[in-house]
Amino acid sequence: MNTTRTINLKNRPTGKPELTNFDITTSEIPAIKQGEVLLSTKYVSVDPYLRGRMSDAPSYIPPFELNKPIASGIIAEVLESNTSSFNKGDFVSGMLQWKETQVAKADGLMKVDPDKAPLSAYLGILGMTGLTAYLGLTEIGKPKKGETLLVSGAAGAVGSIVGQIGKILGLKVVGIAGSDEKTEMLKSEFGFDETINYKTTENMSEAIGKACPDGVDVYFDNVGGEISEAALFNINKFSRTVNCGAISVYNNTKPPKSISVQPFLVKKSSLMQGFVVFDYVDKHPEGIRQLAEWLSQDKLKYAETIREGFENIPQAFLDLFEGKNKGKMVVKL
Amino acid sequence: MNTTRTINLKNRPTGKPELTNFDITTSEIPAIKQGEVLLSTKYVSVDPYLRGRMSDAPSYIPPFELNKPIASGIIAEVLESNTSSFNKGDFVSGMLQWKETQVAKADGLMKVDPDKAPLSAYLGILGMTGLTAYLGLTEIGKPKKGETLLVSGAAGAVGSIVGQIGKILGLKVVGIAGSDEKTEMLKSEFGFDETINYKTTENMSEAIGKACPDGVDVYFDNVGGEISEAALFNINKFSRTVNCGAISVYNNTKPPKSISVQPFLVKKSSLMQGFVVFDYVDKHPEGIRQLAEWLSQDKLKYAETIREGFENIPQAFLDLFEGKNKGKMVVKL
Repeated sequence: MNTTRTINLKNRPTGKPELTNFDITTSEIPAIKQGEVLLSTKYVSVDPYLRGRMSDAPSYIPPFELNKPIASGIIAEVLESNTSSFNKGDFVSGMLQWKETQVAKADGLMKVDPDKAPLSAYLGILGMTGLTAYLGLTEIGKPKKGETLLVSGAAGAVGSIVGQIGKILGLKVVGIAGSDEKTEMLKSEFGFDETINYKTTENMSEAIGKACPDGVDVYFDNVGGEISEAALFNINKFSRTVNCGAISVYNNTKPPKSISVQPFLVKKSSLMQGFVVFDYVDKHPEGIRQLAEWLSQDKLKYAETIREGFENIPQAFLDLFEGKNKGKMVVKL
Repeated sequence: MNTTRTINLKNRPTGKPELTNFDITTSEIPAIKQGEVLLSTKYVSVDPYLRGRMSDAPSYIPPFELNKPIASGIIAEVLESNTSSFNKGDFVSGMLQWKETQVAKADGLMKVDPDKAPLSAYLGILGMTGLTAYLGLTEIGKPKKGETLLVSGAAGAVGSIVGQIGKILGLKVVGIAGSDEKTEMLKSEFGFDETINYKTTENMSEAIGKACPDGVDVYFDNVGGEISEAALFNINKFSRTVNCGAISVYNNTKPPKSISVQPFLVKKSSLMQGFVVFDYVDKHPEGIRQLAEWLSQDKLKYAETIREGFENIPQAFLDLFEGKNKGKMVVKL
């Protein structure tokens, strides 16, 4: 095979991304050089944060370039190797391009073991998703046994893991999600103590107060917007908010307004801090070790939504913003 | 003297406080008991945070009771003592009632030395004001040499000290204030590098960007509201915002709206944290020691606005919200 299909950023979305922001082209595969491998893509991770890279506004990672391939977390099989680090038949994880087949530098790839966990898990619970949940919660949330943890986007890839880690660490865990099916899953599958379906709840602030009668000590925020406003009214003295994401406003075309957080933070000596997993690279090995241990002890479960087919990657990404995933969304090739 | 005048909370303000929220009554002074002292008030501190205690909404300290005396930081002279801790003629500092003469428990009072610093300084730079500036900046702001520090309410009691400590610690310091007279004072008296008069500036976000070409690493926020919105557009990766106060919105009757901070915090891995000096009581002695050392080395200056007359305490308090003070506002009896 000398050519590969590639998904490129055709134009930048204003507001909600659409299929027309992407196009698929076919290009030649170059020969591999010293230190490189030829890879066949097996699983592609689609994640809300990619929305930020589709804009050209400055953010924590550079924007994608127009008419160049999109990239995300990918699990691939080594077809040919020109490095001693990997052999033909190995599986690797890395930040790779949306191509069926590609040449990549061996640096920055990590070998993954399909006998220890399903390959897709290395994009989720044993990858950036799991690390985001674990390090965001422990490094910023600093949870203490007996405290109350509130999680928004709780049925999402990160949120469902955050809640389970909260239970392992001895907290009361309350999850917010967007359907009864999801809130039931949070309780029956993931052991959340209380849940709130925000789509059927009129007064979120009151509902959070009822679900968290001792107030909120740690708020793991994946969504921003109105749900985060409602959480503010329930935070405890010395509470910590992990700002992990703001999916509810990623598609806004101008900065959204909400209730000013400053007076709440002053009144409650409360902390809010943005969390990006890439800032904690030195803690990734310890995080993966802990997650793998809990997984092997059956203390952690994970949900996946697996789509199939290279050409369906963009639609899978768009469906994240409609909440069509339960847990981690990946595309299998 | 067997009676004293007392200033009480007559009714709770909605929105901006007014003179009619207070009344002055005359009451008898009880005899002093074991462990108590009889005090004559010399200086009364008026502070923006007292606005919070006039409401009955929960906050970090309990609300004042209706038809009971207001209390704040006060310097008083000991007229009679029934404790070994203090002698007649000593001066003490404490959280005391707005009375000309009062009986108080010796516990919780601190002796102050009029030979080391003017008495009013113990309400300002060597009191809660200085501690708020020093501990807020160091404990939450974690300033590093060479960084840029932005201070709002910079000509106020806390802000003017924050800026000077920033300079002592080797930062570039930019101050925001509400008149040209104030901004000139910030430069000539307090050594701020750059200043912005927010009342004559159209685009605050742009002005902050111009004054802070390397971005803002530490934002010491005394005001909240629109100025804090403008600061958000200029924060650096890993920046820290000390939410010390939000005077611009204390008088709002419903929670004010502003640009959502969450997407900014996520993009910049940035921290915001509410600061209340009472949370750091164990660090007060070290703070006072450091402030006194800098003061004795002429590294710190302080501004005071001194009003006179017991009956003028409420008006002095109201004038804080009009920005009529330069530095610390106190009332001398």
